[in-house]
Formats: sequence, structure tokens, C-alpha cells
Amino acid sequence: MGHQFLQGKRVLVTHADGDVLARHGATVAANTDPLTDTEAAAAVVSAADHIDVLVANLAYAAPTTLAKDVADDEWDAVFAALVHPLPRLFRAVLPAMIDRRAGKILVMGSAAALRGMKRASTYSAARGAQLAYVQSVGTEVAPHNVQVNAIAQNFVDNPTYFPPAVQANPAFQERLKREVPLGRLVSAEEDAEFAAYLCSDAANCFVGQVFPVCGGWVAR
Amino acid sequence: MGHQFLQGKRVLVTHADGDVLARHGATVAANTDPLTDTEAAAAVVSAADHIDVLVANLAYAAPTTLAKDVADDEWDAVFAALVHPLPRLFRAVLPAMIDRRAGKILVMGSAAALRGMKRASTYSAARGAQLAYVQSVGTEVAPHNVQVNAIAQNFVDNPTYFPPAVQANPAFQERLKREVPLGRLVSAEEDAEFAAYLCSDAANCFVGQVFPVCGGWVAR
Amino acid sequence: MGHQFLQGKRVLVTHADGDVLARHGATVAANTDPLTDTEAAAAVVSAADHIDVLVANLAYAAPTTLAKDVADDEWDAVFAALVHPLPRLFRAVLPAMIDRRAGKILVMGSAAALRGMKRASTYSAARGAQLAYVQSVGTEVAPHNVQVNAIAQNFVDNPTYFPPAVQANPAFQERLKREVPLGRLVSAEEDAEFAAYLCSDAANCFVGQVFPVCGGWVAR
Amino acid sequence: MGHQFLQGKRVLVTHADGDVLARHGATVAANTDPLTDTEAAAAVVSAADHIDVLVANLAYAAPTTLAKDVADDEWDAVFAALVHPLPRLFRAVLPAMIDRRAGKILVMGSAAALRGMKRASTYSAARGAQLAYVQSVGTEVAPHNVQVNAIAQNFVDNPTYFPPAVQANPAFQERLKREVPLGRLVSAEEDAEFAAYLCSDAANCFVGQVFPVCGGWVAR
Repeated sequence: MGHQFLQGKRVLVTHADGDVLARHGATVAANTDPLTDTEAAAAVVSAADHIDVLVANLAYAAPTTLAKDVADDEWDAVFAALVHPLPRLFRAVLPAMIDRRAGKILVMGSAAALRGMKRASTYSAARGAQLAYVQSVGTEVAPHNVQVNAIAQNFVDNPTYFPPAVQANPAFQERLKREVPLGRLVSAEEDAEFAAYLCSDAANCFVGQVFPVCGGWVAR
Repeated sequence: MGHQFLQGKRVLVTHADGDVLARHGATVAANTDPLTDTEAAAAVVSAADHIDVLVANLAYAAPTTLAKDVADDEWDAVFAALVHPLPRLFRAVLPAMIDRRAGKILVMGSAAALRGMKRASTYSAARGAQLAYVQSVGTEVAPHNVQVNAIAQNFVDNPTYFPPAVQANPAFQERLKREVPLGRLVSAEEDAEFAAYLCSDAANCFVGQVFPVCGGWVAR
Repeated sequence: MGHQFLQGKRVLVTHADGDVLARHGATVAANTDPLTDTEAAAAVVSAADHIDVLVANLAYAAPTTLAKDVADDEWDAVFAALVHPLPRLFRAVLPAMIDRRAGKILVMGSAAALRGMKRASTYSAARGAQLAYVQSVGTEVAPHNVQVNAIAQNFVDNPTYFPPAVQANPAFQERLKREVPLGRLVSAEEDAEFAAYLCSDAANCFVGQVFPVCGGWVAR
Repeated sequence: MGHQFLQGKRVLVTHADGDVLARHGATVAANTDPLTDTEAAAAVVSAADHIDVLVANLAYAAPTTLAKDVADDEWDAVFAALVHPLPRLFRAVLPAMIDRRAGKILVMGSAAALRGMKRASTYSAARGAQLAYVQSVGTEVAPHNVQVNAIAQNFVDNPTYFPPAVQANPAFQERLKREVPLGRLVSAEEDAEFAAYLCSDAANCFVGQVFPVCGGWVAR
């Protein structure tokens, strides 16, 4: 794996900027359009033209509703944002990848699907759908030399989930030290570097796997 | 744990008969109505009156579409059957359980969410949502003395998934011996007995857990 | 599964009393001899004569040494108590079980092998050996109709690990509520009931599996 | 993460050559001495002087004895080679790492500890001890800015485990396609590249984690 280990790769990133990928030599098509519309995924993929790697990042601020109070509209909105775009993105990119026997998809998922958290039932369910989907598709398309994997994030420094005011709170820092073995947030840079690694040819050996990036909050 | 270890328990079972539960002394309200309608869950729960235990069994014949060919209608139908009824069932039963500080929910899930399988992406995703949901709600309501857990089934003898003609096929038996450590299907009786155990007071110590019942196909 | 669901079973239990098993109808041979001597396992099994079920419970007070300070004698003592007796017990009971195509082994292991804990490196390593051993042997002997599984305990009420003075400490109760979803210790009775279930014929479908009994501290 | 992302790092590798690490800029002290002698670990570490990263690779040809036939000498030899050197290596390197608040240990473990395999009980047990040990120590030393993780390998191209004659066998290739989602062996290069990544500063966010490198044979 050399300096520009994504050199020559065309990467489509949804809902994120892709700066770290570009730094490693990738040509990045970053798209921040909402993907909730049923035709949006196909349009984004079509606009990006040839795609070697898809980084499927779907973000949504996690509701904190108690399970007994979750209404259908919360549930539907979260699944519309985090889950239903996935098969649309996949069917838009997979045929070309399978045809040319080369391609990679990395889903930026959440460790909330791997360990129970209070007041996170809707979000966890949606994230659980993502990871199980990746395991299944990853197994299915591996023989075509297409690699599908996921990162399962939690406690990653991100202004949406952990705004500066929260991070400045000593109680929050105390909680991090108590609950997260790493004792601090994972930096956005560390997260992006690992994603870049998984997008490179060096990572051709991984298929259908889920990689926690959550400061040791889950061990695997 | 005695003979009639569900004696005095009122159990609501969806999409299944509940015979084994009744044999252990439970009063069983079995409901086979479809639960895809948004009001159906509340109606079923309301009709059942007092519920000590909910066995949330949601069944759907798993499509075998390749991921690249999955259309929105398949995805929507599977999620409508397996996923979206869950929060509706839960919000219908949880408040009373929390109020009386006693109650149990067992979700009959699938091990397809725990290990990748080809041509099962839609189904696996839906099952993954279920298990992650259970982990989260199980953690949340445990302090109220309400226990929420899931069984993750696969290779359980069931005429929907493994009809007699399939089972009679020597190639299928060969595959079972090769892929499933148990070397045979789990019987419906074994599955139901374990579910009954998890519904009993003896199992009050389990919260937010997922129990594979799949002949050792996954170890945990 | 009826009242006396271990009726007619001869069960050998090491390092525990087996009262709950007896209550379910089993004939229990409980042995509290140390098993560190290389010949001890064979002698205990031989003395017990016919054994339908072996409950391999090996206990040792977990050292709390920092990893950087662990000396060989701690390591050797813990492995001598928890690990090395296992293959001796197994080779003493397995041939007869395989010959008669019936038998069960349940290893009482620890969830310390499933999730990292500070100051528990020696103990966790030994417990990790147990669980991986069970997974492997369970897969190997399943075709002979012999079922080998493990319980992975933590936060189970036990005077060795949680003496009354510890339990009376409000800080300990606070820690339980914070770290263990169940919010209390699992009772010894709950743990023993589940072990009894896994020793019964109803549990013939489980092979090579690990069942956490730790108040939801790990989900699976 | 740049070209020479291990530039300036002094890495001690046991039982392997470390070529890939050197290519990324590391100064590599590779040691192929047996580590079964109780003093060997300390001597190797002492000879290497300052160590930024320890790659603890302990290899042993896996016995294929049936569990019922495993004798104490097999068990002892495997644990002497794979398990008991670990705490000796760790206590030799950890104090300096903790003192300077910087350091990394990567244990090259096996996925045999994560999923049951026939005729591999001794080996799996030893590998299980390694992974649980890593999880525990990783959690313990993380607050000192020392990162301890493991790779869990299986189906990696290695002349010890998969000699050319085996690989040339069509039945073996058939088995790979059936059992391993990747459909081929992971190359030694891919394995080493990932290890190099985990040894770099980019991977400071991982603590107490286990990363399967086994062609998707386990998903996480």
C-alpha cells in the first residue's frame, strides 16, 4: 500500500465530503443530496458515471424517544433516511461492478446495532438492518470480486452527534472515560483513514465484514 | 421451574399457535391476523386484554432475489411484514408492563441477521433490524422489570421454510450435515420449548439478549 | 419438557452441589475435589460410573493483577485450575457418550472471555480458552448426538465473587445499575435453572454454543 | 497516513520476518527464536532495546487430534507455544510503553477461536485464550495510550497451513469456494498490510479489538 493508495479510483461518497479519500489520490464525487426520494439514489449514481468505490454514508440525528412512545412517523423517517436508500444505491452500482469484476462498497454504519443502548430503539433497528444487509450482500457478491463491508461507528467525533458544547462538559468526558475503553472520542480523521484503507485494493480480502470503530466499546 | 411453569400467564402470540406455551399452563391468545396494517397491532393487543408475555412472531417467506435485482416493492413488503409491526406491538404492550413492573417480550427472529447468506439480502436486513431493536429496547426497559429478548432461528423444521419435498431430497440432507453442526433441522418442538422457557419467570435474568436456535450454525 | 425433566439422568457436577439438577429429577454425583492433579479428572469420572451429563464447573478466584505485573505462577495456577482439567474431563467422558450416541457436557464458563475487563487478563485468557474449546468440540461431537455447550457467566450472585459485604455497598449497587442492564445480580437459582434446562433433552438442538448469563452485560 | 507510515517506529516481530513493516519505514527486529523457554520473552525484548510496537506472532502447526484422544502432552505443547509466552512478552514490553504513554501490541491470533471447527479443540482453546487476553489487556492499558489488539486469521496463504500441494488440489479449491465467502485464500501480503496498518498511528483509535482476517469466514 503506497502513498496514493487510492490513485486512479473513482469514489462516490454520499452525505460526506471525502477529503481524506481525495488526499489518498481518489477522484471523489461527493453527494450531499437527500436520498429519501425513491429515484434519488439512481440519479446520484448515474451522475457520478463510472464508480470504483461507493462509500454509502447515510446520516440521521438519532431520536431519543422511549420505545413505548415511538410513533410511526419517527420510525418511518429514520428508515427512510438510513435503510431504504441502501438497496437502491446497491442496485444502481452493483451491476457494473459485477460486470467488470471489480468494485467495492463500504457502508458507514453504527455500533448501536451491536450493543444495546437506551432511548435508541428506532436508530438501533435501522442500523441493525444496515449491518445484516452488508453481511448478506457481501457474501453474495464476493465471488464476482466485489467487496462489500461496513464500519460500525460510535463515539466518533462528529458535530452532529457530539457538538462542542457537549464535549466541553466534564460529565461527558467522565462518561467517555467510564464507558469507552479508549477514554476519548475517535477522531474524524482516524475514522476516515480506516475507511480509506478499506476502500483500497489492500483490503480486497475483506468481504461481508463489519468493523467496529468505537473506541473499543465493542470488541468485535 | 416446575411442570406448569407458565401457569397463570396470559400470553399473546402472533402468527403462531402457541400450543407448547399452553401445555406449560399459559392462557394463550394466538393471533394470525396480518399485522401490516398500521392499526392492526394495537387492535390485536387490545383484544387480548391483559398480557403478561408477548411472543412477537412475524413470518414472511424469504425472497431469494439477487441484491442487484431487489426492487422497492420486495423491500417494502418484507419490512412491512417483519419490521414495522414491531414498534407498534411494543408500544401497545409496554406501557402496561412498565406500569405493573412485570412483563416479557420474546421476538422470534432469525440467525440470517447474524451471518451472511447469499440471495437473502432483503430478509437479512429486516431480521437485522429486529435483533438490534431487541437489544436496545431490552436494555431500556430492564430497570422496569420487563424482559425483552429474541431467539435467532435458522434451520428450524417449519413447513414454510423447509417443506417435506425439500427435506426428502438427499442433497438437502447432505447440505445440512455439511453446513449445520447439528446435522439435522432443529425440531419445531425444541424451538417452542426454548421459547416457553424464555417466557417463564425462570428467565427473568435475561434482558436484551439474542439466543441463536440454529443447530450451531452460529455459536452465539 | 415436564416437571422432572432430568428424570433418569445421571449427572456429574464438578465444584458445585447440583441441588437444582437433583430437584429436576437427576441423580447427581457432585464432586468438589480439586482437579489440578493430572489424574484427578479420570478418577472423578471413573468413580461416578455411568454419566449422562457432565457439568464442568471449574472455579478460581480471579486475580486482579495488572497485566504488566502478572507473574508466571499466577498464570500457571489459573490455567491449572480452569483450563487444563477440561481436556482431561472431556477425554474421560466422551468415549462412552460417543459409543452410546447420547450425552451432554455443559461448561460453566465466564463472560469475561466475551468482553474486556481491566485487571482480569489472566482470568479472561483462561476463560477464553474454555469457550473456544467448547465451540470446537461441540462442532466435532455433534454428529455423534453428543451436545457440548457453555454458559458464559458474569454478575451471578455467588459468595466467592460477590460476598455479602460487597453487595451491601451502595457503590456496588450503583455500579450494577450503571454497567449491567439487568440492574441486579443474576440469582444463583436463575443460573442453575438455565443450566438444568441446557442439560435436559429439550436442549438437544444446541451444539457448540455459548450462552451468556450476565444480566445483559453482553447481548450474545 | 502517508507512504512511510511506520517511519521512525521500532517494531519487534516474533516468529515472522516483518518485511512489509520494513517497507512502510519501520525499523524491524524480527526474532524467530522459540519462546517456550520461560526466560526467552524477556531476553528477546531486552535484546531489541526500545520497542514502539510489538507484533506478537506465535505459530504452531495445529494438531488434528479428536477431542476424545487429546493427550496432556499435545495440550501442554500447544499452550507452551501459543499461550504462555504472551504474558511474558507483555510484561517485558508494557512497563516502558506505559511509562512513555505510547506503544502498540498486535497479536496475530486465529479465527479458530471465533467459530467451531472439528479436530481443532486444542488449537482453538489456545487461540481463544489469546483473543480474550487481548480484549482484557487492551481495555486495561488504553488509558495509558497503549493500544493492544488482535488479528484473527484463518484461510491466510501460508506454507505451514496450506502447502502448495494442498492448494493445487481441486477439492481444496472447491472447499474454499464453498466455505469461505472470499472464495480464495487471503494473501500473505494482504494480511501483512492490514497488520502494518494496525501498527501505525492511524490506528490509535483501536483498543482491545479483534479483527478477523479470514475471507469473511466470520463476519466480525
